[in-house]
Amino acid sequence: MEIALLGGTGDIGEGLALRWAHDTDHELVIGSRDAERAESKAEAYAAELDSRGRDADITGADNATAAAGADVIVLAVPAYHLADTIDAVADDLDDGAVLVTPAVGMKRDEDGFHYNRPGVGSVTELAAEAAPESAPVVGAFHNLPAGRLANLDADLGIDTAIVGDDGDAVETVTAVAEEIEGLRAVDAGPLANAPEIEAITPLLINVAKHNDGMHDLGVRFE
Amino acid sequence: MEIALLGGTGDIGEGLALRWAHDTDHELVIGSRDAERAESKAEAYAAELDSRGRDADITGADNATAAAGADVIVLAVPAYHLADTIDAVADDLDDGAVLVTPAVGMKRDEDGFHYNRPGVGSVTELAAEAAPESAPVVGAFHNLPAGRLANLDADLGIDTAIVGDDGDAVETVTAVAEEIEGLRAVDAGPLANAPEIEAITPLLINVAKHNDGMHDLGVRFE
Repeated sequence: MEIALLGGTGDIGEGLALRWAHDTDHELVIGSRDAERAESKAEAYAAELDSRGRDADITGADNATAAAGADVIVLAVPAYHLADTIDAVADDLDDGAVLVTPAVGMKRDEDGFHYNRPGVGSVTELAAEAAPESAPVVGAFHNLPAGRLANLDADLGIDTAIVGDDGDAVETVTAVAEEIEGLRAVDAGPLANAPEIEAITPLLINVAKHNDGMHDLGVRFE
Repeated sequence: MEIALLGGTGDIGEGLALRWAHDTDHELVIGSRDAERAESKAEAYAAELDSRGRDADITGADNATAAAGADVIVLAVPAYHLADTIDAVADDLDDGAVLVTPAVGMKRDEDGFHYNRPGVGSVTELAAEAAPESAPVVGAFHNLPAGRLANLDADLGIDTAIVGDDGDAVETVTAVAEEIEGLRAVDAGPLANAPEIEAITPLLINVAKHNDGMHDLGVRFE
């Protein structure tokens, strides 16, 4: 399977790229608005894998080129770049390509981090509104600890809650999520159930701030 | 310490009462609007503990009598009864008695359960607005699996996120929470950080609905 990681030079994108490169044989394309930056990151990831004896299939390209031909496109960009990024690649998507959004909207005040819920209901639903009809949107990877994800020596032991209205797309994303060792995908139902997942991310930051020895947290449902 | 459980005849109240009776020597008072119902539940809990060789100190009373003299008062009532319940006991509270609210507002539609956030920010903050100034409010026990909590043979292995603006009150509630075996209390900061905790409860219900073998879920930050 070909997986594109748009914003694959940022922290969650990097972690997912390294984990898939390490744990699977999928073809990975790192996307960025800056093709050179994407290529250089892809080389760095490949070198990291090479140092662990893995001959990974990772290349870099501008976002539209990365998205073209991919089966799964992860939109690992900040919430405020989500609609722009989808617009930039919409014409290049294969029919039935699955768009995956891990973005969360947050705001910070003197009390801590808070979920900044968009008017349409969630950032995940914002992506669904921006996406072409031929491309089903799935919400996943919202609450992952970026540092541990990108550290291939760290155990995960965490969950990712997945939402989507297209059963086949949810199945595809669930499968690639579970291929990451230590990550369990749980089905949280339709896209409309995304807000409660997105809201966990600011809580994880607040908990990390207030508890010694807890940092870079994920969540587990049990 | 004396702990009153108002609404201690309902599911979360029952679970907390049984756990504290089993794992600690605190004096427990079950409160209800109906004193007879509270007394009969208290007897049932005591009998359950007796069958396990524990001589528990559990009595029942109407809510105001239960709250009077208690150091910690858990408001284990539905969100829509929270303000009424606080009003009914406010005059009987000891100075410095800590009010604990585990209530969450939810609504259900065809997609699933959703967090129904009150205008003041959270149900926890609703309790703080209704409480007399002498009684600090702490949010805790929002995301507990009621069935497992009330089943003394079940292992917990879960977290409860605690919020509050009064450091001493947070410390008191953290201590009694951690006395329950298998429950870890994590500090999530001030009361203003409650919404993201309350929002987890509907998500746990959605996840339980959509995943075979997952039910009566709690959450763990790790």
